[in-house]
Amino acid sequence: MRLPLLLTTRLRPRTVVYAHCDLPCGVYDPAQARIEAESIKGILEKYAGNDDQEFRTRAILIKEQRAELVKHHLWVLWTDYFKPPHFEKYPELHQLFNEATKQAGASGAKGTLDVAEADKLLSQIDRIAEIFWETKKA
Amino acid sequence: MRLPLLLTTRLRPRTVVYAHCDLPCGVYDPAQARIEAESIKGILEKYAGNDDQEFRTRAILIKEQRAELVKHHLWVLWTDYFKPPHFEKYPELHQLFNEATKQAGASGAKGTLDVAEADKLLSQIDRIAEIFWETKKA
Amino acid sequence: MRLPLLLTTRLRPRTVVYAHCDLPCGVYDPAQARIEAESIKGILEKYAGNDDQEFRTRAILIKEQRAELVKHHLWVLWTDYFKPPHFEKYPELHQLFNEATKQAGASGAKGTLDVAEADKLLSQIDRIAEIFWETKKA
Amino acid sequence: MRLPLLLTTRLRPRTVVYAHCDLPCGVYDPAQARIEAESIKGILEKYAGNDDQEFRTRAILIKEQRAELVKHHLWVLWTDYFKPPHFEKYPELHQLFNEATKQAGASGAKGTLDVAEADKLLSQIDRIAEIFWETKKA
Amino acid sequence: MRLPLLLTTRLRPRTVVYAHCDLPCGVYDPAQARIEAESIKGILEKYAGNDDQEFRTRAILIKEQRAELVKHHLWVLWTDYFKPPHFEKYPELHQLFNEATKQAGASGAKGTLDVAEADKLLSQIDRIAEIFWETKKA
Amino acid sequence: MRLPLLLTTRLRPRTVVYAHCDLPCGVYDPAQARIEAESIKGILEKYAGNDDQEFRTRAILIKEQRAELVKHHLWVLWTDYFKPPHFEKYPELHQLFNEATKQAGASGAKGTLDVAEADKLLSQIDRIAEIFWETKKA
Repeated sequence: MRLPLLLTTRLRPRTVVYAHCDLPCGVYDPAQARIEAESIKGILEKYAGNDDQEFRTRAILIKEQRAELVKHHLWVLWTDYFKPPHFEKYPELHQLFNEATKQAGASGAKGTLDVAEADKLLSQIDRIAEIFWETKKA
Repeated sequence: MRLPLLLTTRLRPRTVVYAHCDLPCGVYDPAQARIEAESIKGILEKYAGNDDQEFRTRAILIKEQRAELVKHHLWVLWTDYFKPPHFEKYPELHQLFNEATKQAGASGAKGTLDVAEADKLLSQIDRIAEIFWETKKA
Repeated sequence: MRLPLLLTTRLRPRTVVYAHCDLPCGVYDPAQARIEAESIKGILEKYAGNDDQEFRTRAILIKEQRAELVKHHLWVLWTDYFKPPHFEKYPELHQLFNEATKQAGASGAKGTLDVAEADKLLSQIDRIAEIFWETKKA
Repeated sequence: MRLPLLLTTRLRPRTVVYAHCDLPCGVYDPAQARIEAESIKGILEKYAGNDDQEFRTRAILIKEQRAELVKHHLWVLWTDYFKPPHFEKYPELHQLFNEATKQAGASGAKGTLDVAEADKLLSQIDRIAEIFWETKKA
Repeated sequence: MRLPLLLTTRLRPRTVVYAHCDLPCGVYDPAQARIEAESIKGILEKYAGNDDQEFRTRAILIKEQRAELVKHHLWVLWTDYFKPPHFEKYPELHQLFNEATKQAGASGAKGTLDVAEADKLLSQIDRIAEIFWETKKA
Repeated sequence: MRLPLLLTTRLRPRTVVYAHCDLPCGVYDPAQARIEAESIKGILEKYAGNDDQEFRTRAILIKEQRAELVKHHLWVLWTDYFKPPHFEKYPELHQLFNEATKQAGASGAKGTLDVAEADKLLSQIDRIAEIFWETKKA
């Protein structure tokens, strides 16, 4: 994105976004999962600060959708981006993805109102992203 | 994406990604639209290089889905993120969004096999992103 | 719809319905947005008259879906049906669509239990429909 | 829709649109099925007039989606709107819906490029609409 | 499924699963509807045993989705699998499907917290399955 | 399914179907993935026997959807059903799921017209099912 240099460096990190489709188009990015996880955190924070019953019902149903998207984006990375040599080099990768997708589900983000659970999910996604970008550099 | 060399080689910035849900959670990012537009470009490039009939059919149907996602993400920004003061400050914003979503549709990305059309879409999204980040800074 | 004349004139108007797809097939109709907005109004009325907790939860989640459909159908009209000459002739059109889609979202139909908010949305859609049918006549 | 009287009577009938949700909100209208069937007809006409391979692939995939929507809207009417007394009064109703939904599927609209098949579907929907509006009047 | 014989006979029956797509692929199975109905029953049992407000909201919204899937799978069987000779041989079939899909909707599974309503739905699906398998044998 | 005993034993096995939702309702079954994989096989067989261009386009797009469903159902089992003790007892489980979901994607079922690729997918799902039912017995 050709943002003015000043903007790039001061306001916002230089996001290189990558997406996915199973043509495959070859475009992947853990950012897609992180975006939805950030959203979950935002929802939980607003939930905590608003005890209106209708608002809370809406928050729970939207959180459910966002958490499902986190799971989906992570599954896509695990199946479509990562190849056998990656799993060989990073033997913890299977478990990391399994735990992160569980954390996005009923035992974590879906089933909780606790912001700390969203933070845990975010750090798992960040660990995945770290490995992802190492493999892109390799 | 033509990132500065330094950035490219040092691996990757600390991505702070922003998403959207209409709670609203307050998390938005033009990256969501750009991701899908990058995917369209990738699909078109692969289409050009592969004349297998089944592959091309798959490419067209996946491109259709990705283009619809571009439209959706842009619509969300236009309706949910941008507020009256923004439209006042950036009077071209309505037309910019209208043209970009048209460009993602049948008259552009959906109806084309021409990579240049994807590039045009990407530059429209970049212009929207530029304004978006200016308003976040403000 | 080729209903028998008697039926047509006494029971119900000669509805010429128009839909949309982004082939494009050339079939559009603001009725699609209005249908969903009518549904929102119906839901809000039933909500007001029923304090069963499960019913109310269901009402909120279904209203959320219907409101999203209103937004979608309006976005489609704005991007796919209306062309530059229309926006030139009706300079208020951008703002009208932006306000109507906002009204269908969290700041309006999605975030409210107030039937008056649904009425406001309906009248915005009616204004759009009025312009739409003028352009079809032109 | 409160259109100006002149417009209403000259250009377009006073459309009272009815939708559906399974709260239920009580809003139903066969127009939803007809809209998608009109779209199928439009697609088939454009298909016949355009032998570009990419366009034709897009036409087929969009027709598939529209036909699925026809089926869905008809199923909703059959299950959610019509009640035992209706089926008693109109004994042909079950078969009519069964044939119309088959006609929207692989043996009809989905599996054809023949505009006459879309016309047949439209007339089946019109017959359903006729009965529907009779029951509303009753 | 080619499970080892021992496993097959002791633990679990030789499930021959049939699916559906409207190519059509020719693969159908009432199990798809039953699976979702079993899920509804499981949700209702968990709902009864857990009075946490957030859990109950999640249960209601997930039950809504599962009930919609029951309706969809039954509609598919009714329209796509069963043919005129079947309806002639089993004249109760139309009504059976109409009642079962109603039972999955707002007047039954969607609108209830009563496990007995899920049981009623399950027995209706079982009766459909019985007829289905008779027609496959014929 | 409480079918009459005679029917059960002669016509069809006593199918105990298990579904999934992430409440969780506790209902899972590898049959959901197998159903869609059987559908892919059926589509490929019909594709091979029909060289009509429109039919083949429809076959490819429907196969794409079915293959996506296979991936989804397998991901759900991997994340939501299987727990750490299972992965400890069956160390090959991660790789088995990773390979099966890859086989359902572009490098297998999605990207092929070869029935043998569907057979390979089916046998991978059967191996998963075998382990699944062992864990249920345990």
